Amino acid sequence: MRTIWWDTVSETVKMIDQRKLPLTLEVAEYTGYRAVAEAISSMVIRGAPAIGAAGGYGLALAAWRSQATTAAGLVAELEAAKAVLDAARPTAVNLAWATERVLRVARQSQQREARDVAQAVLAEAERLADEDVQINRRMGAHGSTIVPNPANILHHCNTGTLAAVDYGTALGVVRAAHDEGKKVHVWVDETRPRLQGARLTAWELMRDGIPMTLIADNAAGHLMRTGRVDVVLFGADRVAANGDVANKIGTYKLAVCAQENGIPRYSVAPTSTIDLSLPDGDAIPIEARGSEEVTRFGGTQVAPDGVQVYNPAFDVTPHRYLTGIITEEGICYPPFTKSLRDAKDRAEARILEG
Amino acid sequence: MRTIWWDTVSETVKMIDQRKLPLTLEVAEYTGYRAVAEAISSMVIRGAPAIGAAGGYGLALAAWRSQATTAAGLVAELEAAKAVLDAARPTAVNLAWATERVLRVARQSQQREARDVAQAVLAEAERLADEDVQINRRMGAHGSTIVPNPANILHHCNTGTLAAVDYGTALGVVRAAHDEGKKVHVWVDETRPRLQGARLTAWELMRDGIPMTLIADNAAGHLMRTGRVDVVLFGADRVAANGDVANKIGTYKLAVCAQENGIPRYSVAPTSTIDLSLPDGDAIPIEARGSEEVTRFGGTQVAPDGVQVYNPAFDVTPHRYLTGIITEEGICYPPFTKSLRDAKDRAEARILEG
Repeated sequence: MRTIWWDTVSETVKMIDQRKLPLTLEVAEYTGYRAVAEAISSMVIRGAPAIGAAGGYGLALAAWRSQATTAAGLVAELEAAKAVLDAARPTAVNLAWATERVLRVARQSQQREARDVAQAVLAEAERLADEDVQINRRMGAHGSTIVPNPANILHHCNTGTLAAVDYGTALGVVRAAHDEGKKVHVWVDETRPRLQGARLTAWELMRDGIPMTLIADNAAGHLMRTGRVDVVLFGADRVAANGDVANKIGTYKLAVCAQENGIPRYSVAPTSTIDLSLPDGDAIPIEARGSEEVTRFGGTQVAPDGVQVYNPAFDVTPHRYLTGIITEEGICYPPFTKSLRDAKDRAEARILEG
Repeated sequence: MRTIWWDTVSETVKMIDQRKLPLTLEVAEYTGYRAVAEAISSMVIRGAPAIGAAGGYGLALAAWRSQATTAAGLVAELEAAKAVLDAARPTAVNLAWATERVLRVARQSQQREARDVAQAVLAEAERLADEDVQINRRMGAHGSTIVPNPANILHHCNTGTLAAVDYGTALGVVRAAHDEGKKVHVWVDETRPRLQGARLTAWELMRDGIPMTLIADNAAGHLMRTGRVDVVLFGADRVAANGDVANKIGTYKLAVCAQENGIPRYSVAPTSTIDLSLPDGDAIPIEARGSEEVTRFGGTQVAPDGVQVYNPAFDVTPHRYLTGIITEEGICYPPFTKSLRDAKDRAEARILEG
């Protein structure tokens, strides 16, 4: 199962509509980049690696449907499309990273026909999606070395197949440990307000037969304090140069609480998530989302009419609360300024070798 | 507005049905103590002081409806009723504290007619409810001294009028500070799984015109780390002799995070909540509730069918994470073993004088 793919018959982008899970597994179809941007902001697709792939495919759609007759004309259109796609969600850096990488192919193309450039853009979007799966498997292999056997793993949000193209980041580490025969059990926190844990992570783990128990976010501290958590794993939407991690709201409180209880806590983040242009987490933009995510549940109203709401989608966990950051290039430990730069360099060399 | 009262016309106990708020304000009527026990366990009424009052009124109903002809026969019935009421919810100690206090009146009564004993039992239940309001106002007066002006107060669960007979414990402190003219703004966390914050605290504060903003529980750490919280206030379901506090699930994580950020954090707890018979919090029973509180929202299913759930209703915050415990006898500071015993002694002397 992939979360997002190019359909060669219909020449469209298809995605699992994650808003409908776990009740129904529906596939949505997109013919233009603006609709893909809308799918990203309305969270049809979410998760840093997955929205990176969506950004790449969004550009592929823009190229494929373009009326431009010259390569230069197409590149100009793609620059505009990239701006629309990048603005769909501000916190995860993978989106801009992916669109930049795909657009670079168009800019650097020696082809003079728009159609040929479009072919190259689509090929790069496909390559980026394929690489995401390989990267996740490599993160899984590195990450599973820090998972004890047996292990009670506390996991936040959804970082699985649905958050990536396939396999997942933090859930990829869980899958790798499970596949190696380790006896793992996952405490899945529901992850309010959008319940990615209850809706998506629980669904994925149950499908894969990996033992799990769903909890309210508020129960995580109690489990840690009473000795029922061996390691805490979560993803990342953006990692600053010093190792500060922006991730789904609630991560910071989990990391602080894990540290207080002497429990190892790792962010699992592909190097595409590392943003060396930002010195620390204070520079990462934090998206605030609509109040209805907090005040309503499906058709059910749960707060008084007219209540004022603040709904930040992410928080920043300062690097001092992290045991390590698991990347496809190995596990980064403090001092993160050096280890993250080294991992990023190795990843870029690998892309260039390509 | 009171949360629970004796209706002298119908000779029944009436309660606001807190499960229906904030959408409708409904009053439920009870004619027997078993139905009151069921109302407590199904959370028609909740909050440690409120369920204490409900326990007292439950015994009053048992006495009022009894067919016993002798005082001794009535006392035996009330002993049985107390056992049923106390078992309704295990964590809050106020329930057993209140039923013990009301039952003691029956045991010690010099009356020989069951009817006269029943009168005394009802009078004691009424006294206990009235005292609760006075106690909350005294806690408010003590507690407001630690609220800065202006203050952003982070508040967990519901500790207001609805959690007590009237006024509230931690929200009583908020009310007192507001009434004194301090500029307070409350961050109301929604308090999953049962959303007492979103449903009840938001409703109370909006009715009273006290500025507030609703947040998902996960957002609390982000607010603390970014300097937007001046003090954290919550209630208590049971306080052990050393100051460990059992309270609504999620309190522990909040207290740890507040300490990490240098933010004062207080439990607001009437002395009836202090259980000197328990040396520390590890001895406090933690109630686990049904999975549907996590998997469903009103009519909306939010997790896969058949998912395994762990749903503890409370956690224990070790005393070292608390700045102080605000009681009606003053604010207790470390070492809590002494300050709590002193507060409890003063409160018992007051009851004996009373």
